[in-house]
Amino acid sequence: MTMKEIVQGKVKTVYEYDNNPKQCLVTFHDRVTAGNGEKEDHPHGKGAINCKISSILFKRLEESGIRTHWIESLTNDTMRCRRLTIIPLEVICRNIAAGSIVKTTTITEGTLINPPIVEFFLKDDSKNDPLLTADRVRLMGIDTKPIIERTLEVNHHLQSLFTLCGMDLVDFKLEFGYDAHGELFLADELSPDNMRLWKKGSKERFDKDLFRDEHYVGEGDILPQYKEILSKLEGLYYAPYT
Amino acid sequence: MTMKEIVQGKVKTVYEYDNNPKQCLVTFHDRVTAGNGEKEDHPHGKGAINCKISSILFKRLEESGIRTHWIESLTNDTMRCRRLTIIPLEVICRNIAAGSIVKTTTITEGTLINPPIVEFFLKDDSKNDPLLTADRVRLMGIDTKPIIERTLEVNHHLQSLFTLCGMDLVDFKLEFGYDAHGELFLADELSPDNMRLWKKGSKERFDKDLFRDEHYVGEGDILPQYKEILSKLEGLYYAPYT
Repeated sequence: MTMKEIVQGKVKTVYEYDNNPKQCLVTFHDRVTAGNGEKEDHPHGKGAINCKISSILFKRLEESGIRTHWIESLTNDTMRCRRLTIIPLEVICRNIAAGSIVKTTTITEGTLINPPIVEFFLKDDSKNDPLLTADRVRLMGIDTKPIIERTLEVNHHLQSLFTLCGMDLVDFKLEFGYDAHGELFLADELSPDNMRLWKKGSKERFDKDLFRDEHYVGEGDILPQYKEILSKLEGLYYAPYT
Repeated sequence: MTMKEIVQGKVKTVYEYDNNPKQCLVTFHDRVTAGNGEKEDHPHGKGAINCKISSILFKRLEESGIRTHWIESLTNDTMRCRRLTIIPLEVICRNIAAGSIVKTTTITEGTLINPPIVEFFLKDDSKNDPLLTADRVRLMGIDTKPIIERTLEVNHHLQSLFTLCGMDLVDFKLEFGYDAHGELFLADELSPDNMRLWKKGSKERFDKDLFRDEHYVGEGDILPQYKEILSKLEGLYYAPYT
């Protein structure tokens, strides 16, 4: 098996897989960044935790009939995936107001958003991932309808899972891509790096906001919470109906 | 007549009018700013030019049945207006892609936007006037429907007027407010400070982009174009059917 790099992201690397043009390997690193890479730390074991959380969630979504790029967990920190053409959008689904929506509007943190909303940001670090309106996405030639529908389905399933874990799914980021036949698949990762999780009914954080926090001092501040999410999901996975 | 300040803006000041709680005076200054006040100049006579352009356009809109805050031109640089509670939104209507929509998307400058789109930005300099989605505005408790309808009506009338002037109305910014009875009125100003005007079929600028340009050296760079807009509108106004 050869390992030729396709894309080097901030916390993951995508490699070619065995010269198979339809598949790739996604490896998670022990790295966490914020502020478009300005803040950085290297919590030991974080890559494997996020890879395992992502694999559990992708597998669950697949079982619910949602097409994702995930094929299998290959090692602790690597997933084998379908190779896709990624749509250059960050798709955000919000159930509770937090983060950028609070900083750039008059909406208060913790406001319940029901029905949930789906937002689009341009995936372009050089432009600082700006917010897009539905009109802007349409003028960029992208049909948002299937993406919004798929995102709301993902939200429905993830909300159910995290409710069983005693967590409120505040918001999360998705990325999508097309395969060679033009079929839409969920891509990227599903982990506490890309979603906000609050202990049910509180604002106790189990996600990357722990790292974004100005009081963050070192890796110890995120690993216990990330591990707790993994452990709760593993508990569900192996005993789903108890 | 007393002159007590209500609001001091970057290029206009709003004063109380004769202790009348339903009216105010809006005075235009010889000042132009860009980049949230970072760049500034004081072109002599600019205040009066923009006040006259605004007065002509507000009067035309009133004659077309669109309610505006404008009551009369009191002096060269001052309009007497209805006093409103201003909605904290900057409402942008776009017919051709230019400015921020080009910088923060993959849409190319000059792309025709037909039908036109209406966008909302939070009017808050401390947050750098961020873009809002329709969902965000709704969650802020503001009903966008009447604002969008009114904006598209304004666009229809302004497009017709500027076509007669040999100009393409690329985009423009509006502000709205409510009177004491909750009636919606168009507020603020209507001038080349708040709209992009390109000579028909070209990209020759007759608006504040001349000042935003990195090659701007002094007031001489905007006054001739602003004066030409005023002169063309005055020509229309005094001989509307010739």
